Amino acid sequence: MYVSIYNLVYLLFCIATMKTYIVWHTNPDTDAICSALVWEAFCRDRWEDATAVRLWEMNNETAYVLSRISEKKLQLVSELPEWSSIVLVDHNDPQQSIAHREKYTITHLIDHHAFGTFSTPSPLYVRVEPVGCTCTVMYHIFKEHNYTPSQETAYMMISAILSDTLHFRSPTTTDADKKACLELQSLANIKDLGSHAMAMFDAKSDLWDMSAHDIVQLDYKQYTFWNKVVAIGVMETTNPNYALQRKQELLSTMQQLTNEQSLDGLLFCIVDIINETNTCFVIDEQSQDIVRKAFDVSTVDNVADLWTRISRKKQLVPAITAVFW
Amino acid sequence: MYVSIYNLVYLLFCIATMKTYIVWHTNPDTDAICSALVWEAFCRDRWEDATAVRLWEMNNETAYVLSRISEKKLQLVSELPEWSSIVLVDHNDPQQSIAHREKYTITHLIDHHAFGTFSTPSPLYVRVEPVGCTCTVMYHIFKEHNYTPSQETAYMMISAILSDTLHFRSPTTTDADKKACLELQSLANIKDLGSHAMAMFDAKSDLWDMSAHDIVQLDYKQYTFWNKVVAIGVMETTNPNYALQRKQELLSTMQQLTNEQSLDGLLFCIVDIINETNTCFVIDEQSQDIVRKAFDVSTVDNVADLWTRISRKKQLVPAITAVFW
Repeated sequence: MYVSIYNLVYLLFCIATMKTYIVWHTNPDTDAICSALVWEAFCRDRWEDATAVRLWEMNNETAYVLSRISEKKLQLVSELPEWSSIVLVDHNDPQQSIAHREKYTITHLIDHHAFGTFSTPSPLYVRVEPVGCTCTVMYHIFKEHNYTPSQETAYMMISAILSDTLHFRSPTTTDADKKACLELQSLANIKDLGSHAMAMFDAKSDLWDMSAHDIVQLDYKQYTFWNKVVAIGVMETTNPNYALQRKQELLSTMQQLTNEQSLDGLLFCIVDIINETNTCFVIDEQSQDIVRKAFDVSTVDNVADLWTRISRKKQLVPAITAVFW
Repeated sequence: MYVSIYNLVYLLFCIATMKTYIVWHTNPDTDAICSALVWEAFCRDRWEDATAVRLWEMNNETAYVLSRISEKKLQLVSELPEWSSIVLVDHNDPQQSIAHREKYTITHLIDHHAFGTFSTPSPLYVRVEPVGCTCTVMYHIFKEHNYTPSQETAYMMISAILSDTLHFRSPTTTDADKKACLELQSLANIKDLGSHAMAMFDAKSDLWDMSAHDIVQLDYKQYTFWNKVVAIGVMETTNPNYALQRKQELLSTMQQLTNEQSLDGLLFCIVDIINETNTCFVIDEQSQDIVRKAFDVSTVDNVADLWTRISRKKQLVPAITAVFW
């Protein structure tokens, strides 16, 4: 077989440009961004190519965490080069993922969520565990590879676990999350997990300069239940009164999003991290109907008291799925 | 909180009857059945409840493997008790799975295939790797748990790997499959992998008493490409002439299956394990069109020569997916 120099150069060009990117979900939380950076560090230390890219902005909590370690330069991109390979972290549902995902080859998925119509044309590496945080899954992978993360990586992992489990208050918390935190603590050089978590939650609750539009979409996910599309926004805060004071403005935004995105339902949950309660804004009859059927709760003045149901993944989505089953 | 004796007894009854079952795919191969039995042994040794159940019959190769170790009593069931938990091995696509899968709670998925619209209402444990065999994925899990399988379990694992990789001839073979086999060999007490593989392949090729209907569906999977349903049956054999002699009978069966199952395409591949070639039976124009577009191959007298494309997963399905993309 003869290979021309032209072919050889073209082949080398293709190999050089076919990079792997680590992709997190829309409206990312601390786990999404930290797990991408943690996986990037793991790959770098193993001489594997994988770059975390910033497709969306980060919230104040994540900005606080990253500001405490050496600044992470995250490349902001609108889309990736064609034919790129991608690693998905902290999500699998195409609706919560990079646009036109079918253009890319998914090589890895590291996640801790239920599966929302996940399909791939080829086999890949998938590691999903029913734990509180993607970084806990990565911690297990690191142990299997006898890999010791750096202080910065351990710091990001603990921050992600405390964030996703609301410092072990969320019902999504497992013993594996607590164990990972305790084992990483000395490596991360965090003396008191409680005060670190509280500083993160305070940063997350600092929304004074934010528009109602951005607040509703802070941690916002769309789900397809059969042919119905329902969105659930969650605002985890140490100061729920702030959102309650901006109620009218938030309700208007919710109506606007429902129209723009042709939603069949939209819930906006204000989760009080300290008292572990969920006050949910509901605008239209369709959404009120979902809340009534899923949780046996009435809506009064566009507010439904969802009590201690503070986990979207474990307490809201399964109950809403059952409504449409 | 008061709990009545009635409630307590009912609760204990529910817990006692909510068993976990290990479920393999329709038209199971040796990997499907052996990986279920291997996972059952792993769970039993860890005092976890999980029972492999027989929803479909096994092929001659698998029967040969199981006959060489102490007989495995596999409970034949038509369906599982409602609310059961299930572990899926060697498949994820609902079309290739137990009927009414949505009635059960999937707790684990151990697999090595691409994902075909997999969705679950709750998070679960998923371990999928792009290797040649589900038992290789299990071997990795065992290493992580410092678990040493018994001689019988190791024997089933090696048999599954040799079967799925056609003794390392299939392009799906990875270094991980070879490594697992070599490391398990002394444990399994198999002196020569080659002669064990050949005995298995001969058993698989022994189809003298089988109807054309059963032969086409020996290793038969349906795939949905957008809104088109295409089935691919594969017969891996050391004696391809046997199927070629029964050509007319097999073609009639294929036509019958196409009508009964409202298929948009059906390929039946006769894979010569020794010479690593694939002779494919194609009945109608739709299927001929798929073969032409996917492989640039013409069909003459209902036969398309697919050359060395012997892996459905790696060489057939991705090319056919591209046709419908």
